[in-house]
Order: sequence, then C-alpha cells, then structure tokens
Amino acid sequence: MNQTTRTWSGSGLSKSRIEALTDGVFAIAMTLLVFGIKVPELPRSPAQARLQLELLALWPNFLSYAISFVMLGIYWVGHHNQFHYIRLSDRALLWINMLFLMCVTLIPFSAGLMGQYPRQRIAVVIYGSNLFVVGLSLYAQWWYSTSGHRLVDRDLDLIIVTLAKRRILLGLMLVLLSIGVSFYSTKLSLLLYAILPLPYILPGRIDRHWSPSRSLLHDEAREWRGDS
Amino acid sequence: MNQTTRTWSGSGLSKSRIEALTDGVFAIAMTLLVFGIKVPELPRSPAQARLQLELLALWPNFLSYAISFVMLGIYWVGHHNQFHYIRLSDRALLWINMLFLMCVTLIPFSAGLMGQYPRQRIAVVIYGSNLFVVGLSLYAQWWYSTSGHRLVDRDLDLIIVTLAKRRILLGLMLVLLSIGVSFYSTKLSLLLYAILPLPYILPGRIDRHWSPSRSLLHDEAREWRGDS
Amino acid sequence: MNQTTRTWSGSGLSKSRIEALTDGVFAIAMTLLVFGIKVPELPRSPAQARLQLELLALWPNFLSYAISFVMLGIYWVGHHNQFHYIRLSDRALLWINMLFLMCVTLIPFSAGLMGQYPRQRIAVVIYGSNLFVVGLSLYAQWWYSTSGHRLVDRDLDLIIVTLAKRRILLGLMLVLLSIGVSFYSTKLSLLLYAILPLPYILPGRIDRHWSPSRSLLHDEAREWRGDS
Amino acid sequence: MNQTTRTWSGSGLSKSRIEALTDGVFAIAMTLLVFGIKVPELPRSPAQARLQLELLALWPNFLSYAISFVMLGIYWVGHHNQFHYIRLSDRALLWINMLFLMCVTLIPFSAGLMGQYPRQRIAVVIYGSNLFVVGLSLYAQWWYSTSGHRLVDRDLDLIIVTLAKRRILLGLMLVLLSIGVSFYSTKLSLLLYAILPLPYILPGRIDRHWSPSRSLLHDEAREWRGDS
Repeated sequence: MNQTTRTWSGSGLSKSRIEALTDGVFAIAMTLLVFGIKVPELPRSPAQARLQLELLALWPNFLSYAISFVMLGIYWVGHHNQFHYIRLSDRALLWINMLFLMCVTLIPFSAGLMGQYPRQRIAVVIYGSNLFVVGLSLYAQWWYSTSGHRLVDRDLDLIIVTLAKRRILLGLMLVLLSIGVSFYSTKLSLLLYAILPLPYILPGRIDRHWSPSRSLLHDEAREWRGDS
Repeated sequence: MNQTTRTWSGSGLSKSRIEALTDGVFAIAMTLLVFGIKVPELPRSPAQARLQLELLALWPNFLSYAISFVMLGIYWVGHHNQFHYIRLSDRALLWINMLFLMCVTLIPFSAGLMGQYPRQRIAVVIYGSNLFVVGLSLYAQWWYSTSGHRLVDRDLDLIIVTLAKRRILLGLMLVLLSIGVSFYSTKLSLLLYAILPLPYILPGRIDRHWSPSRSLLHDEAREWRGDS
Repeated sequence: MNQTTRTWSGSGLSKSRIEALTDGVFAIAMTLLVFGIKVPELPRSPAQARLQLELLALWPNFLSYAISFVMLGIYWVGHHNQFHYIRLSDRALLWINMLFLMCVTLIPFSAGLMGQYPRQRIAVVIYGSNLFVVGLSLYAQWWYSTSGHRLVDRDLDLIIVTLAKRRILLGLMLVLLSIGVSFYSTKLSLLLYAILPLPYILPGRIDRHWSPSRSLLHDEAREWRGDS
Repeated sequence: MNQTTRTWSGSGLSKSRIEALTDGVFAIAMTLLVFGIKVPELPRSPAQARLQLELLALWPNFLSYAISFVMLGIYWVGHHNQFHYIRLSDRALLWINMLFLMCVTLIPFSAGLMGQYPRQRIAVVIYGSNLFVVGLSLYAQWWYSTSGHRLVDRDLDLIIVTLAKRRILLGLMLVLLSIGVSFYSTKLSLLLYAILPLPYILPGRIDRHWSPSRSLLHDEAREWRGDS
C-alpha cells in the first residue's frame, strides 16, 4: 500500500486534487443555500408586526435550507468514506465525480425553488429528483470503483462494499418514497425529507465500537461479522 | 502522539478534512457578508449629492458587516484552537461540527437583516440569537470532546479545558446581554455587539509571554498557574 | 527531481499555492453557475400549470449551465495536467495563470447571458469568445512553460508537449466553428457547444492502457509511439 | 530553521491555516467580482441592436472588474511573499491579517459601485480608498512582522525588508494620486487605476536573474547589492 501511495503522487490527477475540488464545491454549495432566503424588502421603518409576519412567512425557506444543508453533509461524508477506500483514479471516475458535483451544485437552486413554493407538487418533485441524482451518481461512483476491485485495494472486504451500497440505496428509496408521497400530500413529503437524514446522523450501535484507527464503514463491517 | 497522528491518516474522515470544509465555509461566509450591502440603484448619471446620501444611508449595513466579519474571525480562531487539542473524531463530533457550520452560514442572512432594519427589535434579536447558537455549538463541541477526555489527549491540562469554556461562556453572556438590552434600546444593543469582540482581539497580559511553541490557550494556562 | 522539489518548497510562490488558488476559483465558478438560473418569481400560490411553464422556459439556462460546468471541468483537468509537468514558476507564468483565472471567472456571466438570450447571436458569440480566451490562455501557459523546456523537466518527452498542444488547439478550433455557425443558426451553435466536450470525456483508446503510475498524457504518448 | 518549522506544527494557529483562509477569501472575492456585472434584463426576444447597446454600456463594469481582479492578484502575491519570510505568528499578526481580509472582501462592493457610477467622483474615491486600506494593512503586517525581526528569521536581510516596504508604498502613492486626480477628472482617474498594476506585472530587470531557488524579493535584494 505504501508503494501504491507513492505511485499516486506521480500521477497527473491525484486523488487529493479531486478531493480538494469536491471539498470546495461542497463548502460553497452549503454556504450559498442561505441565498435562497431573501431579507424581506419593506419600507425603511416598517411596522414591527409587519416585519415579524414577513419573517414568519419564510419558514419553508428555512426548512428547505436546513434539510439541504444536512443532506449535503451526508453526501459529503459518503463521498469521503468512498475516497478513503479508492486507491486509483481514471478518466471514468473523474467524470462520474464531475457529474456528482454538477448535481450537488444544483441543490441551492432546487432548495430555493421548494422553499419558495412548498405547496407546489412540481417543486417538491424537482427537489427530490435532485437529491435522487446526487445519490445515484454517488452509487455509480462506488459501483464503478469496487466492481472487480477496479480502483480499490484487492483485499478490501466485500462486506464493506455491500454495506456502503446499502446505505446509499436506503437513501434513494426514501427519496423515491418522498417523491411518490408528494402526489398525495406535499406537506407529508416535506416531513419525510426532514426525517430522511436521521438514520445517518443519530448515534447507533456502530458508534459504541468507534476507535480512531477505524473508519465508520469498517466498524460496521466488524459488527456485521460479529467482531467486537 | 506520533502514533496517533499516523493512525489518523488511516481513518475515514480525518481531522484535516473537517478542517478543510470548515475553512472553506468560513472563507465563503466572510466574503458573502458584503452581499448584504447592495450598490444603490439610481439613474445612470445621478446627482452627486443623491449618491452620497444613499451611500451614507448604508452605514448600518457596513456596521453589521464589520461586526459579523470580526465575530466570524473570532469563532474561526476558537474552532481551530479546539481542533489543535482534539485528537480523535467520531460521528457525534462530525455532526456537532456540521451544526456549527450551519449556524455560521446563517450569519450572512441575519447580518443582512440587521443591516437593513437596524431599528427593528426583531432583527437585532435574530442577529443575536444567531451569534448565540454559533457560540453554543462551539461550546457543545468542546464539552463533548473534553468531557472524560473523550477525544483529546489524556494528559491535556484541565485548566486549558476550563479556560476555553470560560472564553466561550463569556461571549454567550455578552450576546444574551445585547439581546436583552434591545428591548430597552436597539441602538445600545448595536453598540454592545460592536464592542463585544474587543476582549478577544486586543492584546492582553497573555500576549506578553507569547512564544512560537505555545498556543494561545496554553499560554493562558501557564499564566493561570503562575508560571512565567 | 527530489532536489528540485526541495528547492521549490523554499521559493516565495510555490506551485502548490498557485494550484490552491486555481482550485478555489474553479470550485466557486462551478458552483456560481447555478446563480444564472433564477427561481421564477410568481404569486405565493401560483397555478400548478403556470409554475411548470415557467420552469420549462428555463431550459436554455439549464443547457448553458450544464455545458459550462463540463467545460470548466475540462479546463480544470487540463490545467492540472500541465502543472503535473511544470517544475518551476516565474513571474510570467504567474500572470499567465492569473489571466487564465480571470477568463474562467467570466464564464458565469457569459453562461448567464447565453442562458437568458439563447436566440441572440451576440450572446452566443460572447459565450464562445469566453471559452476561446480561456483555452487560449491555457495554450499560452503550456507554450511558455515548455518552449526550450523553460519550466519543465529537461527530459520531458516532446511528444507529450505536442499532444497537449493538439488537445487544446482542437478545442479552440471547435469553439471557433461554433462561433462561426452562430451567424447561420444559433440553435446549431448551441448544439455544437453541447457536443464539444464529448471527445474529452468519453473513454477512448487511451483508457484501455490506463494504469495508476501514468498520467493521461503520458499514456497517450506511449500509445503514439506504439508502446503498450 | 528545521527546528522552527517543527515548532510551528505544534502551535494552535499555524501559518498554514491563516494562509488557507486567505487563499479561500481571495479565490472567492476574485470570482464574486463578476457579480457586479449583471446580465441585462430585457424582454425575452429583444431586438439584436438593443441587446448589443446594453452590453456595450457595461464597459465600465468590465473595466472595474479587470482592474480589481488584477489588483487582488497583486495583493495575493504580496501577501504570500510576506508569509514566505514570516516564521512565527501572534495574536496581533492574526488580527492584522483579519483586517487585511476584511478590506479585501469589500473590493467586490466598491468595484461594483465604481462600475455602476464611473463618472461619480464619490464612487471613484471610495474605490481608491478601498485599495488604499488593503495596501495599508499589508504594509502594517510587514512592518509589524519585521520591526526588530519580531516574527521573521533573525538573519533576514534588511534590504529585503526595505524593498518589500518600498513596493507597497509605491502602490499606496499611486492610489493616492488616482484619488487626487479624480477631483480634476474621473476619466483620468480610471486610466490611472488601469495602469497602476503594470509595474507589478510586466517583466523587469529582476526577472532576468530568476531562478527556481530564489523568491522574487530575494532576487531583487541580490540585484540591489550588485550580486549576479
């Protein structure tokens, strides 16, 4: 593995560069989300009550902002967990990653859209579709890198590969569910988006065995096989 | 400690990644603050006096900008001082940090709101509340990392832990005071926000003993115990 | 070469700094592209059909966004491939790179312009001209660095130099063609912009021989000379 | 020096962190400049001639953009040249740097102002004042770091210290001149801003002796003393 690392530093587009661009895009997309929330434009000394009402009316924007920020956080963690195991890079991986970033940079737009029109099914569907393609490209990246151990270490545990796939697929299912539910009620759909991140954030069984030398997925794999 | 460092480089989400994302978010939030100040829209060749008046009317926006920039600077320094001592990471730390960043990215919004409506109590209160939750999540991060030496070195001096807590709590008190005062006078509240950063910036006793090999807090701890 | 690297770390403006600024500018330009797409402003509960129509009318904005994102991706890869071979830096290289970045930061503007007025020849021409000057400054950087092996290793294969030039020149030709075609039909011009990135993304012969220790251009050079 | 480096890595707020934040702020400020140039808002299929006129009317915005981009580039190079020699950090340096960054983030605002109202003396004066305070804080940082060799190597050549001061002071003088001239003619003032960057960009005598192991200032110092 030490040899692999050295080999990497001699390559044209190292893993670290792709990670730097990815970190930059995520940091900016997260910070730009707040631009979907506009300071209300009122006369210079509006009535106190008027401004309060206008601010309260922004609640869907704030909800959309909070959900999107957390979802971006989850995708960022997922991306880094993948790159922890990915050893090599090629043109295909590079462009799958670009596709992933392109979908990520669209999130501020679709979050702004849903924040502005939370009762319009089309806005809720577009938002969900955006989350879906982000997750899908993340899945594609993992699938491409791991199938036949193409870009990962030859001794990478298949359980880790499977667990990571499952985590992404679970998210994709939940997003599809939220989209489907929007045809029945957009309110319920928003609620589903809001609770979607919980399984990825809340501390669970895996965290009991947390130790500095192991990554999140590694831990899960150990648990899966009954190691402590 | 050398061993710990090596261990870290083998972990899925290293400290350095979280720091990179944090630096990015801060750099962007700081630069975006200026977007709360709009170039006045006037006819293409307005009267000289008219433009000057419009620019002078922007003073609350500039004040809000300057306060927010400096506050972000203080929080950034605080965050890095914490990560200087934090050795390990876990899922909880990661998401406390995400919460911290989420509150940070809201600052351009609430700074813009206060800049636009400096005489509205609601704007001054929201701005203060935003500063408060940023500080609170910073406190939570430190508390979580240090209680029982969970994520820090076992030999980290308790005085350093306590001093860092005190510095954050002092800020939280001052913010609460500013919020409270706004119910009496929003002008006084603005003044308090403006002087709030001073204790963190002005050179004090600690800086006399400054040396390259010691961090800020370390210095304070030495002074506290009477070392020179 | 090890010696060269050490020399570098002692220099005032190392390669890595220029790369950091470049990565930052690209990450931001890519993310800001989405700001050319405005959430439609309608009454708070518009008719479902009305919002759908407005969103459909945004298709040129999305097309312009997607093309520009991918083009930025290609230029970013090209820049990094060049810096993989560039060993030294001087004032001229620094400012050619600044010129390159300046053209890159204009892309969000011209992409927004073309997205808003896709049927106006002037918008399509300005967009193409922007892509052209980005490519031209990338070419100038490579020409300056490699002519007489000024800033690259003395044993850098001339075939690699020529191949890299060709790749950029090909792009410049295609952009010129798109600009020219716009005088006949802006629709055809948009189509050309859209397929322009394909030769740089699609896996080709070179990728068959991909291996971790070789950069993209290195591979092409090997193939060119008939090595396997 | 090796020892100094190791000492640094043990400090709370290392040089590299301050540099990372600075690089981020510069990358964003540079990219945001383009937001001072708005895509003209016209009916969806405007007359060809109308759009061309509107775009031509944007020339002051583009001029202001280009000047500001290059000036930011110059300040960025200046900042990095300083940090090449700065070995230690303290609270004062940190906050001088923050003040510097605060002035830098204001540039997109004042560039937008001057781009919108190029014939208004107040806009030209504010723009110049902004450039002035950026340069002044850069000067302050160098003065603070070098006076009594406070934060630099003890054997740093005084000629380098003086040369760097002179370069900044020259810029400050030219900015003051441009501001003064605006009371006579804003057009002449704009012209002066436009040629201001030339002495910092154009290759001069120093570049003849350029070599990879020496920084820009080092070279100048050698020349000054008649070394070749």
